[in-house]
Amino acid sequence: MKFEVLILGSSSATPIYGRHPTAQLVNVNEQLYLIDCGEGTQVQLIKYGVRSNRIKHIFISHLHGDHYLGLIGLISSMHLVGRKDELHVYGPPGLKEIIDLHFLHSQTVLRYALHVHTTQDDVQDVIFENENLLVSSFPLDHRIACTGFRFDEKKHLPTIDREKTEAIGVPSAYLSLVKRGYDYTASDGTIYRWQDLTVAPPAPRSYAYCSDTVRTPSYLPFIQQIDLLYHEATFLHEMVDRAVDTYHTTALQAAEVAIEVGAKKLLIGHYSARYKDLKPLLQESRETFAETQLALEGNWYRI
Amino acid sequence: MKFEVLILGSSSATPIYGRHPTAQLVNVNEQLYLIDCGEGTQVQLIKYGVRSNRIKHIFISHLHGDHYLGLIGLISSMHLVGRKDELHVYGPPGLKEIIDLHFLHSQTVLRYALHVHTTQDDVQDVIFENENLLVSSFPLDHRIACTGFRFDEKKHLPTIDREKTEAIGVPSAYLSLVKRGYDYTASDGTIYRWQDLTVAPPAPRSYAYCSDTVRTPSYLPFIQQIDLLYHEATFLHEMVDRAVDTYHTTALQAAEVAIEVGAKKLLIGHYSARYKDLKPLLQESRETFAETQLALEGNWYRI
Repeated sequence: MKFEVLILGSSSATPIYGRHPTAQLVNVNEQLYLIDCGEGTQVQLIKYGVRSNRIKHIFISHLHGDHYLGLIGLISSMHLVGRKDELHVYGPPGLKEIIDLHFLHSQTVLRYALHVHTTQDDVQDVIFENENLLVSSFPLDHRIACTGFRFDEKKHLPTIDREKTEAIGVPSAYLSLVKRGYDYTASDGTIYRWQDLTVAPPAPRSYAYCSDTVRTPSYLPFIQQIDLLYHEATFLHEMVDRAVDTYHTTALQAAEVAIEVGAKKLLIGHYSARYKDLKPLLQESRETFAETQLALEGNWYRI
Repeated sequence: MKFEVLILGSSSATPIYGRHPTAQLVNVNEQLYLIDCGEGTQVQLIKYGVRSNRIKHIFISHLHGDHYLGLIGLISSMHLVGRKDELHVYGPPGLKEIIDLHFLHSQTVLRYALHVHTTQDDVQDVIFENENLLVSSFPLDHRIACTGFRFDEKKHLPTIDREKTEAIGVPSAYLSLVKRGYDYTASDGTIYRWQDLTVAPPAPRSYAYCSDTVRTPSYLPFIQQIDLLYHEATFLHEMVDRAVDTYHTTALQAAEVAIEVGAKKLLIGHYSARYKDLKPLLQESRETFAETQLALEGNWYRI
């Protein structure tokens, strides 16, 4: 099953050096989910060949402009190109009021159903679930209400060990029960444990998005044992005072977080405009956590 | 004196084919004025080498997203790069409320003074004036409250005809009075008319911006004898019914307006996403009004 993330925007506050404000597209089994939607996200989607109407769920971390000012334009364009499918947007208190005020003054009545769900910034919360995926929000520590998002692939069913089931003669009608954990009793009364008739599934994968936040222990419980951790790394550690003042993180701190939570891989982004060259940020993080990559726009990262 | 306009965005509703939503930069004597501010305008300014903090006045025609969704991002970026000069924004009722709500939720306190002035969509109104320039808003006829903007260069003083004044022996202290329309009385009592001592100044130039609007006679009085008319031409005339339904104009209609108001030149823009190739729009307009040009992003047009 496909599970990967496309970086659409990697810049902090201001667009610069061809970098755009934050947005990411997560593809889980060909279902597309957008995380944050900085100004220009709809143009980035066009650039990377993504039809925006394939997106059914948008998750907004917080109401600083560089994380959501492209949302109204994207919602409007979806309307203009004839979207009919409903759209779900998840974001902090205030987001619905902002969207409503825009459409009040533009006198827009969307042709599709838009549902705005308010996230909570004080508790972890499952905000979306389908047959493959579970998405939860969790509190980050930023200047204003801000949440991270965690994408957990659901546990897969085991696969049938055909060689064994055929040797035993398990009727095909029973196989879907066996996959679901029912033992098989043969006509001679022999009981075959389902574990012995199946091959264990691959472990479910997980992706966590942490931007924007200051380095605190408070959100670490929510991102334990994550496969791929996206963590903001706005500054080099020589600017740690500025990072603390502005409720941001350094590349070193992102690496420390990755180690503390047992992350397999780390993706850093949300680069300050002071860094034209990103290699020093990558180097700083890799010195502590080797499995770091830069979030680069247009790149897909497999989870 | 410089008087020219840079096209930053030429697309209607949605960004497409590398075209961006509406924004224009007017340079009058090295003072920069922004008209409309679609999503991505701040990136377009960077692309064309314009420092946004040189802009002191922004004029917003109406509250459809493609004409103003870049405004909050631009205002925020000006703040982040340390702007100190005050900024004046002129736009329809509702604009201030939208800006205030954004900054309430992002908890932004701008480091510079932002003044939002509400335009009127039922009367012509002088909204800005300095020593070189007069800007007025005037009603257009769109689905929601919408104004055009007219930039009028102020009348220049005549230049002194040095040959004559030196022959007569007009003292240099009198010359600035002569320029301002005072006759000169020589010591022998001869009166020299100021008109005979000066060379008439070039006629003051004018630029009008008409987007978005349906074709009606109502706004023609406000754009009479304009030097350069920017007029939206969203559709080809074969789509005139759609133009009327959506309160827009065709390329033919833009040309007809240019003729009716005695415009010297016409610039068409705000192209529908259905036209990848813009030549048919240009051709249609030129068949009626030869002095038509396409508004193309990155191009400066002299007035």
